[in-house]
Amino acid sequence: MAEFELIRKLRAVLPGEGSRVRLGSGDDAAVTEPPGATATSVDAIVEGVHFTLPEFTPEAVGHKALAAALSDIAAMGAETGEAYVVLGLPADSELGDEKLCVGIAEGVARLARRTGTAVLGGDITRSPVLSVTVTAVGHEPRDAWLVSRSGARPGDVVAVTGELGGAAAALRLLDGTAAGEPPAPAALLARQFSPEPRLAAGRALADAGATAMIDVSDGLGADAGHLAEASGVGLEIEMGTVPVQAGVAEVAGGDTAALEMAAGGGEDFELLACLPPESFEAAASAVERAGTTLTGIGVVTSGGGVSLRLPGGGEIEPGGWDHLA
Amino acid sequence: MAEFELIRKLRAVLPGEGSRVRLGSGDDAAVTEPPGATATSVDAIVEGVHFTLPEFTPEAVGHKALAAALSDIAAMGAETGEAYVVLGLPADSELGDEKLCVGIAEGVARLARRTGTAVLGGDITRSPVLSVTVTAVGHEPRDAWLVSRSGARPGDVVAVTGELGGAAAALRLLDGTAAGEPPAPAALLARQFSPEPRLAAGRALADAGATAMIDVSDGLGADAGHLAEASGVGLEIEMGTVPVQAGVAEVAGGDTAALEMAAGGGEDFELLACLPPESFEAAASAVERAGTTLTGIGVVTSGGGVSLRLPGGGEIEPGGWDHLA
Repeated sequence: MAEFELIRKLRAVLPGEGSRVRLGSGDDAAVTEPPGATATSVDAIVEGVHFTLPEFTPEAVGHKALAAALSDIAAMGAETGEAYVVLGLPADSELGDEKLCVGIAEGVARLARRTGTAVLGGDITRSPVLSVTVTAVGHEPRDAWLVSRSGARPGDVVAVTGELGGAAAALRLLDGTAAGEPPAPAALLARQFSPEPRLAAGRALADAGATAMIDVSDGLGADAGHLAEASGVGLEIEMGTVPVQAGVAEVAGGDTAALEMAAGGGEDFELLACLPPESFEAAASAVERAGTTLTGIGVVTSGGGVSLRLPGGGEIEPGGWDHLA
Repeated sequence: MAEFELIRKLRAVLPGEGSRVRLGSGDDAAVTEPPGATATSVDAIVEGVHFTLPEFTPEAVGHKALAAALSDIAAMGAETGEAYVVLGLPADSELGDEKLCVGIAEGVARLARRTGTAVLGGDITRSPVLSVTVTAVGHEPRDAWLVSRSGARPGDVVAVTGELGGAAAALRLLDGTAAGEPPAPAALLARQFSPEPRLAAGRALADAGATAMIDVSDGLGADAGHLAEASGVGLEIEMGTVPVQAGVAEVAGGDTAALEMAAGGGEDFELLACLPPESFEAAASAVERAGTTLTGIGVVTSGGGVSLRLPGGGEIEPGGWDHLA
């Protein structure tokens, strides 16, 4: 199947409408009318690095690619707007171009429709392994200011949405290196196959006065480090208060190992936010209305760096989830 | 070298300032304040498909990736604004990560500075072969309306900027399949190593009343076909009037072969525009002031499809430059 015909098929699958869209997919460029400030982020996922085949269905690959990009939009507190998708296609796909591409497009489309994201363009190229690169564009909601990583102030509460460690535990289940059987493997696997970008929670946090925000894609320790560095502050995190997903302890092989997995594992796509203490209660209620939880896990200090304190004493080294390492 | 340190080095090389930039590279997303409508396009170039190593220096790879993306912005008649760059890095680069990445970034940076494009973000991933994906964002200039592919009207003049065939001839020089020695190989090779996005010409054409526009990336015949289909018109192109770059005939092996190369070869990144006949003269003068030429090569008809008429009679089949074929 030739490129142009394939692109036509994909365009039919993907949602291309939106109130801000003046010209959708199929021209040299898409044309939009942004309402104010826009937030733009680009993220690539690559077979063998961010996902494996056939463990990931084409739909899961598409979902994860869009979710990872939208997670950055969520971490700005922005409204999701548009996405642009580039497929790098291997020549020898067992599924064949059309089935693979349409499956990926369906995974992208489902999450795009649910979140209200218009998919306005893209590209297809040959590549030795499958890759999906998504550019996501968000817009500033009327009632909130976009939240960078750099506004945290000493005395702020450090808080995290949802639960951590699940995405790393899922990888262990997939590659057969789990220490034991978790009670609910499907919920863990969902952190890899269908991660949820915390768009509504991100807007709620921005609206509630979050001073700094980042998504947990490189791991709690590494992302806390990015935020601390950008803000010129320190983050003291009590690992005993970090919400760890059910089943992570079984997969990791114990409670301390579970905390290490929660601290070092990436791709959970939860939000790490700093808030003035007086704003925390209202923020937690707003995040709950947005469908998830907000847990206070530490405090911002004037010193630099990140400490991840274990309940029994000692610390976890704030490592990184470095796909290039 | 770890990902984060490498990204810091690249950020230092790339121009990240701009009047519309509120928050540059280094956060979850970049934040911009678009002045009105925005045009967004995404383009990927892949080693072995769109460029080869070591024939392309890292700087040439970076240049070509940004040029291909900006060419789409030019084809809308938009002002260039921002770019986002994703590198897919092979693990076993002979140059090493840093030298390769910094070289690519320097190629991107030089063209970005010259065109006034801010590079506001990106990503690095491991990939079996080198790839560069660029998302380019343009803005609607005050004095012109963005030009899609779909506004051509019967009776319009079909015109093309610059000269065609050079990029395809350069590939023949690079892979050693040229029929003969061209007089100026460097000018041909420049079409691959440092193609020029026709940004100023694109704005001039939009301002002069172009009804439809597309960049010649898939080949004149194929791109004329895209424009004809989008506009619901036919395009009759007299190949004898098409400006063919010097040296293409020598490489292709004759004048008719040169016209076939000009019609079928992609990646020239010239602009194909339709204009009301009364606007052509002024448009040609404006394009000349923008540093290149505008040549009338045909006419828009009410019938569908594209015909590429040879001077001596007969037609060239409007094929495609299909990287997936």
